[in-house]
Amino acid sequence: MNKSVKDQLGRIVKKSDAVAPAVILVNPQLGENIGAACRCMLNFGLTDLRLVAPRDGWPNPSAEAMAAGASIVLENAKVFDTTAEAVADLSYILAATARRRELEIPVIGTEHVGTKLQNYAHKDVATGILFGAEKAGLQNADVALCDAILTYPVNPAFQSLNLGQAVNIFAYLWKSAEGKAPPDTFQSDLSEVAKRDHLIRMFEHLETELEKAGFFYPLQKKALMTQNIRAPFTRARMTEQEVRTFRGIIKALAKGRGRGQG
Amino acid sequence: MNKSVKDQLGRIVKKSDAVAPAVILVNPQLGENIGAACRCMLNFGLTDLRLVAPRDGWPNPSAEAMAAGASIVLENAKVFDTTAEAVADLSYILAATARRRELEIPVIGTEHVGTKLQNYAHKDVATGILFGAEKAGLQNADVALCDAILTYPVNPAFQSLNLGQAVNIFAYLWKSAEGKAPPDTFQSDLSEVAKRDHLIRMFEHLETELEKAGFFYPLQKKALMTQNIRAPFTRARMTEQEVRTFRGIIKALAKGRGRGQG
Repeated sequence: MNKSVKDQLGRIVKKSDAVAPAVILVNPQLGENIGAACRCMLNFGLTDLRLVAPRDGWPNPSAEAMAAGASIVLENAKVFDTTAEAVADLSYILAATARRRELEIPVIGTEHVGTKLQNYAHKDVATGILFGAEKAGLQNADVALCDAILTYPVNPAFQSLNLGQAVNIFAYLWKSAEGKAPPDTFQSDLSEVAKRDHLIRMFEHLETELEKAGFFYPLQKKALMTQNIRAPFTRARMTEQEVRTFRGIIKALAKGRGRGQG
Repeated sequence: MNKSVKDQLGRIVKKSDAVAPAVILVNPQLGENIGAACRCMLNFGLTDLRLVAPRDGWPNPSAEAMAAGASIVLENAKVFDTTAEAVADLSYILAATARRRELEIPVIGTEHVGTKLQNYAHKDVATGILFGAEKAGLQNADVALCDAILTYPVNPAFQSLNLGQAVNIFAYLWKSAEGKAPPDTFQSDLSEVAKRDHLIRMFEHLETELEKAGFFYPLQKKALMTQNIRAPFTRARMTEQEVRTFRGIIKALAKGRGRGQG
């Protein structure tokens, strides 16, 4: 972020919002929705917008037109090739999705999510939320990177929330929980939860070794198997130390295996 | 509403939603926002859309395009010339506005509004909420017809919520409070609160008599004086019987005055 944009952001949101959640749009299709997201983010004090491979490239004139008044959020948006890169610096990540998944990931309702994120913010834990593409929604591989699924209480007969509207409600939930008491207790070492990219590199390390060992069989099931392996580690909220330890374990096991049977 | 539309609505929202709040857009400018309102209303189980003098007339092709999937709400929308007519059958009315008013009207936050409206719905009390035009917002004369002002906890540095987004959050608040316990007690005779048009006719009766009596002086202050007179009566949540009694009082006073001094 260049300095003048950073200064401007400092003036339009409160200091405490510096650790406010990142909003991550995965493969967004319509610039209008990206622009609408900027507006409602700024309405409710969010400024960290991240885009994963936006369909129509970047920058996007439709997004600029729609962001009117909130173009500072758009200018500040970061673009990534993959979801993993977009969440690399975060330690608690939500997936906004209405679809049930085969993944073992806890579901959080709209009632407590704001307070939960405000609490993380007070402890300087970086958080974020993924929103999927307009039609397709989020892929399981993206959801498997998340700590919890956020669902909205929609009318079962008409569930399909517009992308901008979904971001809007999330932003409202964040802001409306400002100053509320914690709904639950937290691990005492919460602020030491591993950054997501450390966890992802641990996954990749493990999966590389598993692949070498011929674990992924049949190969077409690799994606599903990978998700199922990642989910419990993500849920565990591993600390940096635990991640380091586990990487040592992977290394040790792989080395032993290589030596034993080639 | 024609029968087939009514049947369709019956299929797409639950029966209990029949007394769900009306969403009243006063002088909406952009068809896109009207269509967006339809979508998010249906997402959260609201179907009673009312339009007061939409700028671009009615029907509106931009609204139809944007309402995709929720066109049933659009087809069911009712159009009125005045706000008073649009709220005539309602007994509890909110004004969505961020602006402070000189009016003596209580302010309700987003935290309890959903539960309050769900409670009214269970008692078959008809409720609604006014949203103003995109730029101008609501006029004081419209707000003076309301029981309370609903404010959103927006970022002070960027308060201007898009109309569709404002309706979206309201609709979410309604739905998310479904099945929640009452936050406060209600007058036992709540379901007998006078319909708003009876109250409005009482106001008009009173104001006509006051005008004849030369009360509105100087005349350019009439609008402001009228609002200030209406506000406490609206706050009082008068019953049908009380409205009838008060009309008798106005009549009696006016008659006596006329007789005494011509």
